[in-house]
Amino acid sequence: MTLSDPLVATNVRIHQERLWDSLMDIATIGPGVAGGNNRQALTDEDGEARKLFVTWCEGAGLTVSVDQIGNIFATRPGTETNALPVCMGSHLDTQPTGGRFDGVLGVLAGLEVIRTLNDQGIQTRHPITLVNWTNEEGSRFAPVMMASGVFAGAHPLEWAYDRRDASGIRFGDELERIGWKGSFPVGGLSMKAYFELHIEQGPILEAENVDIGIVTSGQGLTWLEIDFHGRSAHAGSTPMNRRHDAALGAARLVHLVNAIANDRHPNAVGTVGRLSIEPNTTNSVAAYAQVAIDIRSPVAAMLEEMEAEIRSGAESIAAEIGLSFEIRRLQHAAPVHFAPDCISSARQAAVALGYSHRDIVSGAGHDAYWISRVAPSAMIMCPCVDGISHNEAEEIFPEWAAAGADVLLHAVLDNAVKV
Amino acid sequence: MTLSDPLVATNVRIHQERLWDSLMDIATIGPGVAGGNNRQALTDEDGEARKLFVTWCEGAGLTVSVDQIGNIFATRPGTETNALPVCMGSHLDTQPTGGRFDGVLGVLAGLEVIRTLNDQGIQTRHPITLVNWTNEEGSRFAPVMMASGVFAGAHPLEWAYDRRDASGIRFGDELERIGWKGSFPVGGLSMKAYFELHIEQGPILEAENVDIGIVTSGQGLTWLEIDFHGRSAHAGSTPMNRRHDAALGAARLVHLVNAIANDRHPNAVGTVGRLSIEPNTTNSVAAYAQVAIDIRSPVAAMLEEMEAEIRSGAESIAAEIGLSFEIRRLQHAAPVHFAPDCISSARQAAVALGYSHRDIVSGAGHDAYWISRVAPSAMIMCPCVDGISHNEAEEIFPEWAAAGADVLLHAVLDNAVKV
Repeated sequence: MTLSDPLVATNVRIHQERLWDSLMDIATIGPGVAGGNNRQALTDEDGEARKLFVTWCEGAGLTVSVDQIGNIFATRPGTETNALPVCMGSHLDTQPTGGRFDGVLGVLAGLEVIRTLNDQGIQTRHPITLVNWTNEEGSRFAPVMMASGVFAGAHPLEWAYDRRDASGIRFGDELERIGWKGSFPVGGLSMKAYFELHIEQGPILEAENVDIGIVTSGQGLTWLEIDFHGRSAHAGSTPMNRRHDAALGAARLVHLVNAIANDRHPNAVGTVGRLSIEPNTTNSVAAYAQVAIDIRSPVAAMLEEMEAEIRSGAESIAAEIGLSFEIRRLQHAAPVHFAPDCISSARQAAVALGYSHRDIVSGAGHDAYWISRVAPSAMIMCPCVDGISHNEAEEIFPEWAAAGADVLLHAVLDNAVKV
Repeated sequence: MTLSDPLVATNVRIHQERLWDSLMDIATIGPGVAGGNNRQALTDEDGEARKLFVTWCEGAGLTVSVDQIGNIFATRPGTETNALPVCMGSHLDTQPTGGRFDGVLGVLAGLEVIRTLNDQGIQTRHPITLVNWTNEEGSRFAPVMMASGVFAGAHPLEWAYDRRDASGIRFGDELERIGWKGSFPVGGLSMKAYFELHIEQGPILEAENVDIGIVTSGQGLTWLEIDFHGRSAHAGSTPMNRRHDAALGAARLVHLVNAIANDRHPNAVGTVGRLSIEPNTTNSVAAYAQVAIDIRSPVAAMLEEMEAEIRSGAESIAAEIGLSFEIRRLQHAAPVHFAPDCISSARQAAVALGYSHRDIVSGAGHDAYWISRVAPSAMIMCPCVDGISHNEAEEIFPEWAAAGADVLLHAVLDNAVKV
């Protein structure tokens, strides 16, 4: 088969039922309580899922190596000696009340890509390497995207080993215990390109009836935490003009964050998802309020601008109501911009295969964010029902998974056949 | 001494140091942890304070009787047989982190009134009865103003006996245990008038440098509880126009309640002092919010109007954001309007004594609210520092207490000497 012939190439499609069966098979490991999965990083169940995955990889003729943080690399050789691998992957670990597709789809669609190439006898110039990144979810051991972060040089390996779960168990110890501490140096693999297929975890693609999201950027994120200090007072005997109501400050800030993000829609989001007041009794004016703010935008300058507006807004609100306030940045991550060539490969694949598609910005974090620091990278998204994720009710349809895997296949092929 | 001579009468003043000493003495019983008191209803400390109080009453020649709910009536006889008593009183129980003056001042100022009449050899036509009402605070056994409520026929006695504290102890059992279940039938005392001196528990008098508040009304109160149901969603991957943010609904409602009350200042107050959202994590749009609203006004129609505006406002907010909502009335008490003659007695006393005064509306609830249902009643207020109450930091000055007690003395005298 000559891959340079586009008509031939686009006839190559993955095997939808086989992909779906693999997804359902691995979902039997670490079942949740409501149809999803609880397969947190470095649990016995994570070990069992890795074992099944490696069995499948070896069955597909791949050479498997494991690095010192448990990242699994399964490689199909290329025809050219010393050519850098084209990589694809995601993660097999889940949230405690996770779905069956978040992360898992990207890994098993990669496996399906390999199986399809094998079925069709397609040889590539570059090796193709499928990766399972350790502990993307960060729900047991913080932070999220831990091992891809170490791979990309964002965190030291020893620091990662020293992370502990809620019961005090050390990451490094647990990695050894489940038998997945490998010998390959972390970050020792250079990549020609990296592609990650993931469910959207948002509502846009399904709502717009679009098959494929071409992820151009990952949103930058800033978390702010604001404390308003007012004065506790009797709700009955304190006239309105003598109050210093911290709850009112919090409410105005929620409204402001919403307005600031709405003004920039669809290029930003802003959320107050955490909010508390004290003493929190019906007949007392609140003395204290804490508001946690999550703002995101793929445009770095916009994110800075939003933060500045929130800071000055909080100051005005505090002054109007007679509150004192403190504001802290809890977290900040710059926007991620994926590699134009990789984006283009993914978009062309969707076009050639006849899938409807649109550019999309990822709101959630993914391993590809870190990998984009060390290799040309892009992401492909498929819809998920009602945008629900990090929830056992997370759902996709086999044809959505297949479309995503097809685009992954052709994006990878495009890079693997070219010099 | 002829009380019909106003020049003589206004020379009669209570003994400031003796009143203050009594206040400080009783404050040694059930001390708090920060200079205030923890002397909750029917604790051993409540029993001890009652004992000291009765000792003082008997020392002042009063006849003491205790009713079946522990209310203490200490009577100084009048000159006319069968004349109804002029009553005064308040409560000796405190909040768990209570101050030394809330309630206690009204009881011990009443004692000081008696002692002053004794000192001056003043006889009155009507008997004068000093009352300590059981369990005004309601912090251990709900509801507040329990025994004055039973006295006024608002609650059945057996129902009150069956109230239980957090550890399951029954009110009636505890009343017996501390030895203050009397035999006098509850509500068996008819009154010519009832006066209650109380600290303001708000900031107005101190801020305006006014000695005495003449309480014309007690605010009506409505408590509403609103649930907003939205949809939990990822704070990063859910565009602003696809959210159903329950926290935003709550915030707009807080703002609305504030605006509705501000519009009616100084004739109403409105507070959101209790507020919670779920799941309450920084990176999730809130699926649920609960808001508890406290609105008060001395004008019944205004209170109804505010409630209607909140109900329709909540509906609009829910519709705009795409939330469902439920609204419940948790509590409602109609405004209390004190008796014009009693108000007038108090006001004239302040004028005659040369104290600065202003009419004031009580924001908090008091035993006098219930008693006003069965007897002509009024209240007198003195300032408290920074309006702080229900807090161990509650503070007043001896001269403030003395001014209040002087006005109480003359308001009571005015009623006790007249037919």
